[in-house]
Amino acid sequence: MPELRKHYFLDEYCIVATERQQRPSDFKRECEEGRIAKCQFCPGNEEMTPPATAVYKRVGRKIRILKDGQERVKGWTIRCFSNLYPALVPSPSSPERTPWTKLPGYGFHEIIVETPEHEKRLSDFSDEQIELLMSVYKDRISHYREQKDVRYVSLFKNHGAKAGASLAHPHTQLIATPIVPPLLKRELQKIEEIGSCPYCDIIAKECNSKRFVCENDGWVLLAPFYSQTPFELWALPKRHVHYISALDELGLLGTILRDALHRLDKTLENPPYNYMFFQSDNEQYHLNIRIQPKLTIRAGFEKSTDVYINTVAPERAAKYLKNV
Amino acid sequence: MPELRKHYFLDEYCIVATERQQRPSDFKRECEEGRIAKCQFCPGNEEMTPPATAVYKRVGRKIRILKDGQERVKGWTIRCFSNLYPALVPSPSSPERTPWTKLPGYGFHEIIVETPEHEKRLSDFSDEQIELLMSVYKDRISHYREQKDVRYVSLFKNHGAKAGASLAHPHTQLIATPIVPPLLKRELQKIEEIGSCPYCDIIAKECNSKRFVCENDGWVLLAPFYSQTPFELWALPKRHVHYISALDELGLLGTILRDALHRLDKTLENPPYNYMFFQSDNEQYHLNIRIQPKLTIRAGFEKSTDVYINTVAPERAAKYLKNV
Repeated sequence: MPELRKHYFLDEYCIVATERQQRPSDFKRECEEGRIAKCQFCPGNEEMTPPATAVYKRVGRKIRILKDGQERVKGWTIRCFSNLYPALVPSPSSPERTPWTKLPGYGFHEIIVETPEHEKRLSDFSDEQIELLMSVYKDRISHYREQKDVRYVSLFKNHGAKAGASLAHPHTQLIATPIVPPLLKRELQKIEEIGSCPYCDIIAKECNSKRFVCENDGWVLLAPFYSQTPFELWALPKRHVHYISALDELGLLGTILRDALHRLDKTLENPPYNYMFFQSDNEQYHLNIRIQPKLTIRAGFEKSTDVYINTVAPERAAKYLKNV
Repeated sequence: MPELRKHYFLDEYCIVATERQQRPSDFKRECEEGRIAKCQFCPGNEEMTPPATAVYKRVGRKIRILKDGQERVKGWTIRCFSNLYPALVPSPSSPERTPWTKLPGYGFHEIIVETPEHEKRLSDFSDEQIELLMSVYKDRISHYREQKDVRYVSLFKNHGAKAGASLAHPHTQLIATPIVPPLLKRELQKIEEIGSCPYCDIIAKECNSKRFVCENDGWVLLAPFYSQTPFELWALPKRHVHYISALDELGLLGTILRDALHRLDKTLENPPYNYMFFQSDNEQYHLNIRIQPKLTIRAGFEKSTDVYINTVAPERAAKYLKNV
């Protein structure tokens, strides 16, 4: 059963999730996704995954949402289910006592299969497809946010083996946690201190800078002044919105995200990447999405200082990305 | 010229170091170290690297230390020089003004070539060799700590391409920075709050726990309760020491570190790894070395929360490592 462990004395956490029962010899050091005979996420193989928690199915021009008891439904457009090896679970057992803080590994860990098409890239999604995916994000985040004792819902995509994806079929992950993550906590504390929204300020100033990449009616895309990795991008809603549930125009979110991925795909020849949603219940926070192509390795210096060495200035990255 | 950039509003930093002038097409996504015809770090190729800053040479039973003006000396045992592509430099130019905080990228970035032997693993070093390496660490850290405006000296080793080493020849890196890194700052704040040394407490409690791995007269080695990665290890001096300069028995440090690497090599079949020294001028701090084999990828969840998912409980890792 997973456990949530607090650092000996800092406000940091790790999750010990040993469901896979990995032995030392299991840590194969290959680079690419394992060649698997049968993709678990492809249509027709639904019995290889846990039962669906939600299925979105196109019927004529409408999307039908099927939940509970219809888990093995076929012909789906987007399919959600619990991770087979969850980081957190709804009914954890109580952990053994130690002198240190150990909490039950309570939470939810869901997979959102974005499309039945195994080879499809998000940058090639149609307007309709990308908007549907964003509304599924909103739906699932809101669903888990309402569960008892959930304090945060993390939504992220790992694309490519080097960015941590163990399966190639396009999918997003959602982990609902019983704690507010340390990273967000530190941001919220600082925003409290500042007393106004620093992201609104960033948007105002960066839109006229060399780091601006593009925009649409609702969003801006920029290569942030503080970029941890080469070609990092931030997508920010122009309107001060703290949570995805407060967004109504999901098409605009979808197109800015697709645009960002398209520019990265063209500039860097389909790189592996991660994107992450940052949001908070606290209305002072400003929803933002960070996209990091995985081009470099976080090594000893970064690990021991939390200072990042970035070999491409964001101004230069923006120039390349703007010209796509 | 490198720049140190502060986050828009958080106390976080990144270094923009563009000396390499990387283009998008330079981010090749290979896994292994590039096959290079001639290793820059091997004896005989000293002219391929910047002039040495210090050379340690065995003469009979003694080690001679040669500095300045003897840069191309041959027959060395350990050789130090500035990184050809430094993250920070001694004479940076003043950065262009922006609305955000940008500091000159002042500092030092040194390579310590640990042995003339290209294929040698640290776990195979003799007592004499490992003790010498530790005394070079102490020497070089102390040297840079005394330089004007240096606030911190980070010492770390990246071993293997997957752990961020761009060259296979055994080497350690040292980066001297004009700031106290955010990670250490947060630790020091918390230790100040606690009012006693949490590491002394950790040693006392973990020595009798399932996470204890081994010890020698001066040091303990344990798989920490809060382990960010599978098989993470911490080496801690039993005596409360805040900085490597305050250590006199360097042989004991060398043997515990070698022992840790030997156990990882045997258990995980020579994994890539990082090790990092954590220390502070503040005497309340407790010197510690963290060793992380690189077996997993820090992906979207970790990046967006700073919470780590670890699939091997430290108690289980300790059991494997103890039995070596």
